[in-house]
Amino acid sequence: MSEVLTKPSLDEAITAAAEAVNDFLGSVLPDSTGPERRLHQAMRYGTLGGGKRLRPFLVSESARLLGVDPRRALRASAAVELVHSYSLIHDDLPAMDDDDLRRGQPSCHVAFDEATAILAGDALLTLAFEVLADPETHADAAVRCDLVGGLSRAAGAVGMVGGQMIDLASENMISDAALISQLERMKTGALIAFSCEAGAIIAGASTEERERLREFGYELGLAFQIVDDLLDVEGDEAALGKTVGKDVAAGKATFVSALGADGARREALALIDRAVARLQPYGMAAEPLRAFCDYVLNRRS
Amino acid sequence: MSEVLTKPSLDEAITAAAEAVNDFLGSVLPDSTGPERRLHQAMRYGTLGGGKRLRPFLVSESARLLGVDPRRALRASAAVELVHSYSLIHDDLPAMDDDDLRRGQPSCHVAFDEATAILAGDALLTLAFEVLADPETHADAAVRCDLVGGLSRAAGAVGMVGGQMIDLASENMISDAALISQLERMKTGALIAFSCEAGAIIAGASTEERERLREFGYELGLAFQIVDDLLDVEGDEAALGKTVGKDVAAGKATFVSALGADGARREALALIDRAVARLQPYGMAAEPLRAFCDYVLNRRS
Repeated sequence: MSEVLTKPSLDEAITAAAEAVNDFLGSVLPDSTGPERRLHQAMRYGTLGGGKRLRPFLVSESARLLGVDPRRALRASAAVELVHSYSLIHDDLPAMDDDDLRRGQPSCHVAFDEATAILAGDALLTLAFEVLADPETHADAAVRCDLVGGLSRAAGAVGMVGGQMIDLASENMISDAALISQLERMKTGALIAFSCEAGAIIAGASTEERERLREFGYELGLAFQIVDDLLDVEGDEAALGKTVGKDVAAGKATFVSALGADGARREALALIDRAVARLQPYGMAAEPLRAFCDYVLNRRS
Repeated sequence: MSEVLTKPSLDEAITAAAEAVNDFLGSVLPDSTGPERRLHQAMRYGTLGGGKRLRPFLVSESARLLGVDPRRALRASAAVELVHSYSLIHDDLPAMDDDDLRRGQPSCHVAFDEATAILAGDALLTLAFEVLADPETHADAAVRCDLVGGLSRAAGAVGMVGGQMIDLASENMISDAALISQLERMKTGALIAFSCEAGAIIAGASTEERERLREFGYELGLAFQIVDDLLDVEGDEAALGKTVGKDVAAGKATFVSALGADGARREALALIDRAVARLQPYGMAAEPLRAFCDYVLNRRS
């Protein structure tokens, strides 16, 4: 009988991945005392101020699944987290979601100013690719290029940024579940899918293996987003560290608005079932990712 | 006696580089009919709506200087121009330079809206790295990684974005020529320097050769910026296609405010002299770049 990871040990694994990536980010983020220091401070504020570091956990675990020491995936983890951090800074801007609170603290444009927040996001996105292209990331330059290509496709106009555009454009429009699926697949799913694929890229895995982990990531990411939508309706502001009820107030299309709370919950469950089924070939090595699937479904923050 | 390129033939060379990069950009920029089409339209608007394409000319000519067919440098040219286009879109935003006019047309955030302009810039920056990482860029993945690394350093927190931060922070402050040099070296110089170095990277040139072309680019870029500052004071709005007198109105630190118009003109001349001296080892092959140096100094738009 397989021994399922208990909640504390999943927490420990997530924490270990978070600590490793936080240490690395602290060392790779610029910290000048020159006249550009305000920019560097804003980059550090927007990146190092907490966050669960779930994507670095996924990069680490997908690498480990294929026999690669997670330490060899650390720079890829950091690149993904830099892209995630930049996206939060830009999404919070007044012209976008206009959110003053992030991770229980003032958003970057509130703590600094709008111009600095725009530039900090730009610089974090740029730094992600600098980190990946560095020979330290992997001895094989073709692997580094695959990482750069994969991250840029996930983050760009047909991925995360495209999804954010659809999200903004769909405010106050009646939207069906298919459109919401498409937007969330792009907005949140693409970067989570890349996080899972990154381990396979680093491991030099086959196209089939890369695709399997990418699809696992898409399903996981979509389930994650559905639970996010549910928490925006039902969640606790203090536990979440951000404003709740904003989606409804903004008339935003979400899975909850399209499917109702019960329908959304059923959809999340079905997605997680499919994701877990994809892990079947990996046996015990996939236990941390299975435990993570369970966590995504049942999280409260 | 060496035959110096006459103005018409320099124009022809710049136009040829511009047409090649415009064609390529038109094909590589996304053009969806889906719900994210507004983003794609804004990306195309901000990139394809004119511009002299001086950086692609520099990438092409630095490649040709080292015996590489400029067509083999086309994707690097496009990546540089994507970064340049994104920087103009973000710089024009109300929270930044607040400029409604660009290349004689409404700025991206005026033609679309602020959120779309922020996202279009983000997506263009991301696309630049996707273009470079693609195997089509160069057969050697290590060369592609060098291009990604070089462009990210030039564009990021210690390059272009860092320079824009200093520029914003220096408004209404008395600034000396040394600080202005530092900020312009970062803000404008770094991307122009990378444009010149890119040809050497593609040619697999030595570190010394790369450094020589990079320094040539820094000097050229600084001279270009000084002339830009002079044109903001003395230029013709119709010929420039943008508002003049904005630097003075904003109390911005420029070479003209620090050195006076005559001092600034002398500094530009000294920089171009140094840049031209660096081309000495290349003989006739460097004629297009020498002609370009002359153009930078004497341009009226």
